Amino acid sequence: MLRIARGDSMYTKNDVEVLINNKKLIICGYESAEYLQRIASYINNKIVDFKNIEGYKSLDSDMRNTMMQINIADDLFKVKEQLEEIQQESDRKSSEIYNMKHDLVAARTKLEEKEVEMLQLREEYNELQKRIIQLETERKERRVLDRD
Amino acid sequence: MLRIARGDSMYTKNDVEVLINNKKLIICGYESAEYLQRIASYINNKIVDFKNIEGYKSLDSDMRNTMMQINIADDLFKVKEQLEEIQQESDRKSSEIYNMKHDLVAARTKLEEKEVEMLQLREEYNELQKRIIQLETERKERRVLDRD
Repeated sequence: MLRIARGDSMYTKNDVEVLINNKKLIICGYESAEYLQRIASYINNKIVDFKNIEGYKSLDSDMRNTMMQINIADDLFKVKEQLEEIQQESDRKSSEIYNMKHDLVAARTKLEEKEVEMLQLREEYNELQKRIIQLETERKERRVLDRD
Repeated sequence: MLRIARGDSMYTKNDVEVLINNKKLIICGYESAEYLQRIASYINNKIVDFKNIEGYKSLDSDMRNTMMQINIADDLFKVKEQLEEIQQESDRKSSEIYNMKHDLVAARTKLEEKEVEMLQLREEYNELQKRIIQLETERKERRVLDRD
């Protein structure tokens, strides 16, 4: 949680001075100075946006502050919704990857089996070829004998 | 953007009455009543948390409001960081899916090629078998002739 220091007495090296709505204040937290400055300028930009809105100036300081709070919370809730959507999309992709890994293993296993089957058939094929050569040689020799 | 209505005069069917920090106020926006009530209770829960923190009570109303704003913005920035991480993870998964699709197509194409090759070899194998039967039949007939 970020806290606001009351005066210079609480100033430590973790504290960062920022300007919000033209007021200097010291934020205490474990975040980097750069991060806290980003938060300050995010709020300041929102104040600029609000000032262009009809009716904002007639709100009292308390209502202006509440309007700021509900609008930052609105941004937060919108990002949370986006986060949920992307989380679901990411989960969906995970199960797609899981299924594809399974399909890929299946296809590669089938390919390996086919290669083994092919190798066996080729061996048998070679045996048949040898047998044919043997039979044809035999036949040729017999014909020679027959002619003699 | 969410606005705060000034008094009952601006009450329309899009407006919703909420209670923030024990004060009734009317929020105008295009969001559902349920959504706006969730925002109100998120802020009210934060007020409860703050009240347990040393030093909060001695802050003036303006500083309390600013503390609320920077803490809601802190929540927002933290969720944004999460969103970025999950987005990167989701992008990484997308390229994994892309690569796996490619691998799967490659494996399936190779499998199809093997099947065609196998079919051809089997045909040739059958031809060789026929040739052997032919040669062996010839040899058998010749032997019968020889014996006679």
